[in-house]
Amino acid sequence: VTEFQLDPRLDADTLPVAELPLASLRLMNDRRWPWLILVPRIVGACEVHDLSEDEQTRLSRQTALAGRIVKQVTRCEKINTAAIGNIVRQLHVHVIGRAEGDANWPGPVWGYGVRAAYDSEDAAQLIARITDALQFSNGQIA
Amino acid sequence: VTEFQLDPRLDADTLPVAELPLASLRLMNDRRWPWLILVPRIVGACEVHDLSEDEQTRLSRQTALAGRIVKQVTRCEKINTAAIGNIVRQLHVHVIGRAEGDANWPGPVWGYGVRAAYDSEDAAQLIARITDALQFSNGQIA
Repeated sequence: VTEFQLDPRLDADTLPVAELPLASLRLMNDRRWPWLILVPRIVGACEVHDLSEDEQTRLSRQTALAGRIVKQVTRCEKINTAAIGNIVRQLHVHVIGRAEGDANWPGPVWGYGVRAAYDSEDAAQLIARITDALQFSNGQIA
Repeated sequence: VTEFQLDPRLDADTLPVAELPLASLRLMNDRRWPWLILVPRIVGACEVHDLSEDEQTRLSRQTALAGRIVKQVTRCEKINTAAIGNIVRQLHVHVIGRAEGDANWPGPVWGYGVRAAYDSEDAAQLIARITDALQFSNGQIA
């Protein structure tokens, strides 16, 4: 039995938010955009279609929930979700809040410029607002 | 009752492949990458979380299936899936086959360079291979 381990690059670039039933929810440490990452704790999964149908459903629910929460907490205009993984192959889903005038709007966030880390207080505050919103949605997460 | 209509920009940039039970499957008319688009025929949907839970599940299945088929047909290395919609707000999901050395690898495809249309014969051939692969998976689509 191999135990799931978070890819070290994802670990280095993100801050922990919550352990959902299927996926670890993390905050990209980049204050240019409110940017969550969901990492299903499934050993060896690279593509969404590597997951079982049940896992796919759960991941899609948790992704939608993360999107709803980012929109609610940041009042952004549009959610961008993606599973790309050309560099880090461990399956991870991006959930990013976008708004007119943000860095590279309306272009994509991936590969744009240089990551700008949060002040630790700002990160803690945003994480607290996200986990608060998650509390209210707890019944929805399987 | 408002009837669903494909956004005219999506219509102009893509070629029809198949009408799946929830979503229209289309080929981005850009030969730089094998690039499918799924458009759920749900009036007014902009975000994945605008869909009902059942629709989310079906979209996630159809997206996974499209990814499996692109990988099988093109033998690409990695599937990129995304719902972005910063410009065209009608909900649409990108499913793109990526491989080392392709245009902008490993960066994202969105906003990169200029679309290069297929020769119509090449497009027809690729669409035929995709619909053939879909035939074999028909039982899986709800």
